[in-house]
Amino acid sequence: MEDIDATIERVKKLIELDAWVEIREYINDLNISDVAELINEMPTHTLAFFQQLDFQRALAVFRILDLSVQEDLLKLLPSNILVQLLNDLPPDDRTALLSDLKSSVVKEIIKHLNPEERKITLSLLGYPEESVGRLMTPDYIDVEPHWTVEQVLTYIRDYGKSSETIDVIYVTDENGKLIDDVRIRDFLLVDPKTTKVEDLIDGRYISLNVNDDQKETMSVFQMNNRVALPVVDDKNVLLGIITIDDVLWVAEEEYAEDIQMIGGMEALDEPYLDVTLIQLYKKRIIWLIILFFGELLTITAMTNFQNEIAKVVILATFIPLIISSGGNSGSQAASLIIQAMALDEINIKDWWRIMRREIFSGLLLGSTLCVISFSVITCWHFVSPAFGDHYLLIALVVGCSLIGVVLWGTLMGSMLPLLLKRLGADPAASSTPFVATLVDVTGLLIYFSFATIFLKGVLL
Amino acid sequence: MEDIDATIERVKKLIELDAWVEIREYINDLNISDVAELINEMPTHTLAFFQQLDFQRALAVFRILDLSVQEDLLKLLPSNILVQLLNDLPPDDRTALLSDLKSSVVKEIIKHLNPEERKITLSLLGYPEESVGRLMTPDYIDVEPHWTVEQVLTYIRDYGKSSETIDVIYVTDENGKLIDDVRIRDFLLVDPKTTKVEDLIDGRYISLNVNDDQKETMSVFQMNNRVALPVVDDKNVLLGIITIDDVLWVAEEEYAEDIQMIGGMEALDEPYLDVTLIQLYKKRIIWLIILFFGELLTITAMTNFQNEIAKVVILATFIPLIISSGGNSGSQAASLIIQAMALDEINIKDWWRIMRREIFSGLLLGSTLCVISFSVITCWHFVSPAFGDHYLLIALVVGCSLIGVVLWGTLMGSMLPLLLKRLGADPAASSTPFVATLVDVTGLLIYFSFATIFLKGVLL
Repeated sequence: MEDIDATIERVKKLIELDAWVEIREYINDLNISDVAELINEMPTHTLAFFQQLDFQRALAVFRILDLSVQEDLLKLLPSNILVQLLNDLPPDDRTALLSDLKSSVVKEIIKHLNPEERKITLSLLGYPEESVGRLMTPDYIDVEPHWTVEQVLTYIRDYGKSSETIDVIYVTDENGKLIDDVRIRDFLLVDPKTTKVEDLIDGRYISLNVNDDQKETMSVFQMNNRVALPVVDDKNVLLGIITIDDVLWVAEEEYAEDIQMIGGMEALDEPYLDVTLIQLYKKRIIWLIILFFGELLTITAMTNFQNEIAKVVILATFIPLIISSGGNSGSQAASLIIQAMALDEINIKDWWRIMRREIFSGLLLGSTLCVISFSVITCWHFVSPAFGDHYLLIALVVGCSLIGVVLWGTLMGSMLPLLLKRLGADPAASSTPFVATLVDVTGLLIYFSFATIFLKGVLL
Repeated sequence: MEDIDATIERVKKLIELDAWVEIREYINDLNISDVAELINEMPTHTLAFFQQLDFQRALAVFRILDLSVQEDLLKLLPSNILVQLLNDLPPDDRTALLSDLKSSVVKEIIKHLNPEERKITLSLLGYPEESVGRLMTPDYIDVEPHWTVEQVLTYIRDYGKSSETIDVIYVTDENGKLIDDVRIRDFLLVDPKTTKVEDLIDGRYISLNVNDDQKETMSVFQMNNRVALPVVDDKNVLLGIITIDDVLWVAEEEYAEDIQMIGGMEALDEPYLDVTLIQLYKKRIIWLIILFFGELLTITAMTNFQNEIAKVVILATFIPLIISSGGNSGSQAASLIIQAMALDEINIKDWWRIMRREIFSGLLLGSTLCVISFSVITCWHFVSPAFGDHYLLIALVVGCSLIGVVLWGTLMGSMLPLLLKRLGADPAASSTPFVATLVDVTGLLIYFSFATIFLKGVLL
């Protein structure tokens, strides 16, 4: 895991000496993850390194390279090697790769696949973008219930090489319908001669439907302690399997999207440093403009309160404090609820329970800030009398506004993700900047309402 | 996966009829994930349901119950069943459970363990909270290099039952040092009589150190396509293994923490609905107070600009717009960089590249908002002349401030996570409210500086 820098140093020295025989030897002794990192880090030598690898290792390395490096390689490789590489990639990895590549590159590549491989790839590609069908591989081992365990083991020995996993074996009937899945350990723990497959099945399998959402798969794996799950169609015919390592990537992408959306932008499709400045700009500016137009409402609010500000200039002083306290409590509540929904800890049905909790929390949090602000303004007054003679009234206005604004922010932050979910949108779209902007406008209204109530006849 | 509601309905009806024989039958026919959900959803019948299950199924169900339900059950179960349950839990799950439970409950339970199990549990507990040692299980199969594959298969048949996984077999020397790991498929694909273990090993294994951080394990699993990884000490002695399903939970916790921190609060240790209101309050109020004191700086800034506001009241109108535009662009940048760091897409060494990108992005984003605000203010003037005769000058001040504030927000948002990482803190602590608060104060300074420059001698 460590010391990739040392590896790169070493290779750089060997390149200077033009000692490619040594490089070949050295590279073929490294772990594939180290080779991949080496290639990622030294893009100028991608092809040269890659051609030093034995074919099976090259395949393994290719699968874990960064997408941009994969694209580069596909363009650089001689077409006969390209075809061999693509044909030997497991179908699920190939599908993932093809759906990430630019479509012009894809078309070029698909042409090179042999007819059978092309059929598999295209059929996998027929399922919707985020569906389980896109992740599955048709390389699994299925056996029939009347076989003996010995037959199964022989079958595995003969046909297991091309299977993505032999940790789980699938039992199907003559129509290809799934009967059960059996872990390889169960075959190994019994006497192979006297035991039949049907003795080992209990019909308690978990399967995924080919149209299921990929996001759901992670929790199915977690809850059921499997390394692979079968994928069936609506008639329960076994189409392929999904292995747990593919799900790790899905989960990671999912969370990355959530975090970017919570930060108030559209999710990126590629790693930060691979995205062009223009793409980065596009993904960010859209939300910035939407938020900007939301903030324009504050101008409307403020122009309505111009007379109050003109009379009591000190009121303007507390505007940033008030509105950002609302925004902060809203951000907390929103991220809390988004996260809990992402982990299925809560759902829409719980809205009333959540609302009750958040009303209490908001009141508690707001009251705390109220007490603090009251103390701060009073102490401040004795140090420098910036707030005038009516500093206690001002403190009262600020304190009450803080309770109102924090309560309101907490409520908005917690209910908005639930509302979005109810409307079929992604809860993470209720980003912290979005909540903050919503609370800004209403925060001003709350603040100036309290100011009017408490200062009417005194300062206003 | 679906239809848990139907299951609950059905069981409720059976309970009304007091038909426990049918309930027993029904429950034992469900998938364990459904039983767990049933128990989670009907806390009043936890013990009654649980006692209907065969022991092995009860164990499997227990492992995936919500933590709070697990705690309740441990308190309710008769002590002989409790001990049996704990003794039969795989050590890694037991350790995870014990480290989540309140320490008073733990002490009570540890007493019930038999001496050998207690020793394992305590030795596992000796490793730091977030270390790989806490996740590992010592239940694995290790073989010696001179054995034949047939010997290995017989050994698995005899001792495999108590192993957490037999998908990977470990090869150790006489001192317990790890030589290699071999996937079970490799044993099954060769002739068992003539092949020895040493023929199958290539010494290219990946191992984790017992003191490694749990966070790092996910990417090791991803990059190396394994379902289990060996854990060794500094002398390369094999201590245990980690299975991929445990890592799924670690990854999930990690991301939940990140999202909560980005939202500007301390991470919760338990699911949202299980946390008491007081705990929830504590986790949130700390950051709210810190941010509140940060915002007090805006009061200092504002009191310094009181004269300007008194002279040109219209200046106050744009304060919320200006500071929240800075906060929004800062939030975007911070979440972008935190997420990219969490996925290892960037690290501290890239700071200059990131800074360059973000300066460009900030200028582009700011300029866009500048153009929009200029147009909006000009149009607004022709609808209602709220901004006075010098609306063009005002538009100039607002536009230039937006460029400055957005650029500054983008820079702060992107550099702060890197700085925190450099200081050894969690980058996610640079929450979006934190960045927004930092930018609020400086945003005011930028705004009033431009106001002074452009309006001096005209309005000021």
